[in-house]
Amino acid sequence: MLPRPSGIVALLTDFGARDPYVGLMKGMVLRAAKNAVLVDICHEVPPQDTAVGAFWLRAAIGRFPPGTVFAAVVDPGVGSARRLLCAAAHECYWLAPDNGLLGEVLAAAAGAGAGSAAEVRAVALDHLGLAATSRTFHGRDLFAPIAGSLASGRYGFTALGPRAGEVARLESVLAGGPRVVHVDGYGNLITNVGADALGAAAAVRVAGRAIPVRRTYAEAAPGELLALVNSYDLLEIAENLGSAATALGVGCGEPVSVEA
Amino acid sequence: MLPRPSGIVALLTDFGARDPYVGLMKGMVLRAAKNAVLVDICHEVPPQDTAVGAFWLRAAIGRFPPGTVFAAVVDPGVGSARRLLCAAAHECYWLAPDNGLLGEVLAAAAGAGAGSAAEVRAVALDHLGLAATSRTFHGRDLFAPIAGSLASGRYGFTALGPRAGEVARLESVLAGGPRVVHVDGYGNLITNVGADALGAAAAVRVAGRAIPVRRTYAEAAPGELLALVNSYDLLEIAENLGSAATALGVGCGEPVSVEA
Amino acid sequence: MLPRPSGIVALLTDFGARDPYVGLMKGMVLRAAKNAVLVDICHEVPPQDTAVGAFWLRAAIGRFPPGTVFAAVVDPGVGSARRLLCAAAHECYWLAPDNGLLGEVLAAAAGAGAGSAAEVRAVALDHLGLAATSRTFHGRDLFAPIAGSLASGRYGFTALGPRAGEVARLESVLAGGPRVVHVDGYGNLITNVGADALGAAAAVRVAGRAIPVRRTYAEAAPGELLALVNSYDLLEIAENLGSAATALGVGCGEPVSVEA
Repeated sequence: MLPRPSGIVALLTDFGARDPYVGLMKGMVLRAAKNAVLVDICHEVPPQDTAVGAFWLRAAIGRFPPGTVFAAVVDPGVGSARRLLCAAAHECYWLAPDNGLLGEVLAAAAGAGAGSAAEVRAVALDHLGLAATSRTFHGRDLFAPIAGSLASGRYGFTALGPRAGEVARLESVLAGGPRVVHVDGYGNLITNVGADALGAAAAVRVAGRAIPVRRTYAEAAPGELLALVNSYDLLEIAENLGSAATALGVGCGEPVSVEA
Repeated sequence: MLPRPSGIVALLTDFGARDPYVGLMKGMVLRAAKNAVLVDICHEVPPQDTAVGAFWLRAAIGRFPPGTVFAAVVDPGVGSARRLLCAAAHECYWLAPDNGLLGEVLAAAAGAGAGSAAEVRAVALDHLGLAATSRTFHGRDLFAPIAGSLASGRYGFTALGPRAGEVARLESVLAGGPRVVHVDGYGNLITNVGADALGAAAAVRVAGRAIPVRRTYAEAAPGELLALVNSYDLLEIAENLGSAATALGVGCGEPVSVEA
Repeated sequence: MLPRPSGIVALLTDFGARDPYVGLMKGMVLRAAKNAVLVDICHEVPPQDTAVGAFWLRAAIGRFPPGTVFAAVVDPGVGSARRLLCAAAHECYWLAPDNGLLGEVLAAAAGAGAGSAAEVRAVALDHLGLAATSRTFHGRDLFAPIAGSLASGRYGFTALGPRAGEVARLESVLAGGPRVVHVDGYGNLITNVGADALGAAAAVRVAGRAIPVRRTYAEAAPGELLALVNSYDLLEIAENLGSAATALGVGCGEPVSVEA
């Protein structure tokens, strides 16, 4: 059953804070839905990095009210023939370009068992009377009015367009060998190693160093490195009150191994 | 006819994200108008750069609901005798210091034909019972309560103060010879060359390189430079999936020419 | 008397903009209180710097509507036994870890005279049926649902838990010898010298330079250094239209003296 829109529009983009791009997109959401409630998930997806964007959308599953409309714009193909998709999944709506950005959200829905699979529509712009006024900023020109219209109930999900059929796929940041996949703002090294794969290991190895597994940051002494399961349910290498990235001099892609 | 306030207050400042300045300004808007809807346009106007601020306000014309109150604070003269202005234009209200920040908004209104010219008022602080508690932060002390009061309908526009007469002027970033006027967060080089001036040219020249004109980023190969008309309707030099600023090693002020 | 919740939740954290942490916390506030109004004070508290966080919370006193719920998360002890506190003070609610982050807010309440002292509760998580799903992100798992529930009136303040008794203390950034305590986004040097201690002094001394006291930035010539009382009611060293931090080559901790 399709969720009832909550009026909330949650935005994830790679637009950054340096320009008015996010603000102009918000203005256009409000033109379509004066009472929409706008929430920023994050606008610092590394430029054009759809894989990181997909990972962060996954982190939002279950963390917003049912009926939230997610509008995700990491869109290197803007202006080209790539489609605009909308998925109904996890009791919410997820709007994004057809470039793999929805990959994790769709995979999580498919993995959640019978009856949970997402339904995906391809937005029929002509049919909705929508045309972009630019070839470089469909967040403002298309995603915003569609998100607002969905959130306000002006369009129903099924009115957006036909079922999408095959959608673009993307290698997950969580796939591949165990390694650092993101360095967060604290300098914590976030890996693709799940809590299950860590198991009861006492230590992990990164950059030639054996790092003890702890339960919390504060279990390590100030300035001491530690490994723990973080809020993404992934193995993370951190320094208590410091930056593991700086201490170890490593970044994305650095291999990690769990010591038996 | 004056627009009816929508309850939306859109903020543009040079306050940045590093300090609580934007947050304190928002708190004060809400003290004046508990139901105001706050939207950030951008807070990364380069410090004291009123010309860039004016350009970004222009980008907001027509992108927010009618009745939006814009509060723009790029205010190197804070605490001095410079006036606070409010323009009614483009179906919205525009509050800013009298330092040229409203220049593009006023010029666009004047250029839009008969009946579209802005009306500008000089805020009469004494008359409204307003006094700043600081000499360095009128965003918090004055612009916020005025914006909130306008948005909530507590003050009408004409009650703000007398007609402003002559207002401060500022050279537009769009004036002067063809050049790069802003580097955005992707490293795209935004120029002051309008789509009309580009015409049907096949290439542009920057930093000694001839760069082909495309319609979309994706028409260039990954890592290839291109020129296109962007969402400001201006010529932009970009690298598909990369940073043109890095690739070319140039920034603001770099001359650009359109090849015949 | 306890303030009636206004529905506003104001967030202060050290999460930064680089990650979706703030967005996920907001989603969880909205899950608890669909009609909450979210406002960001600032998310760029230096990592784990509770003293700066405490100082910025103090700057918010009296700047938000009565009944605002502040949720402050600078929380190096996340996942440990440190308590979650909620203070009723200054006509608002202030939620934070028991690590000194509330220190300035409590001190200001105690200093405001009879009847103004804060009441502080220790949140009884078990009693409220709350359990964190992570050991690294209680902003999302605990602070957000508590803040939302307080803001919506679902919990009353006194139902949060017992009186807190002794709370953790922290040296104030305003304590100690006269010095620079923060460099803001403009490069202004913010000191711990109050307006009272500056008195009628004509100059201050920093980095071997005598710097004249002015009333406004614009009273100095462009590029000239000046000292003035800023919007925190503290002595600030600035450069008109420039960065004092760059001009003087100094940062936090730099001693300052007021010339007689």
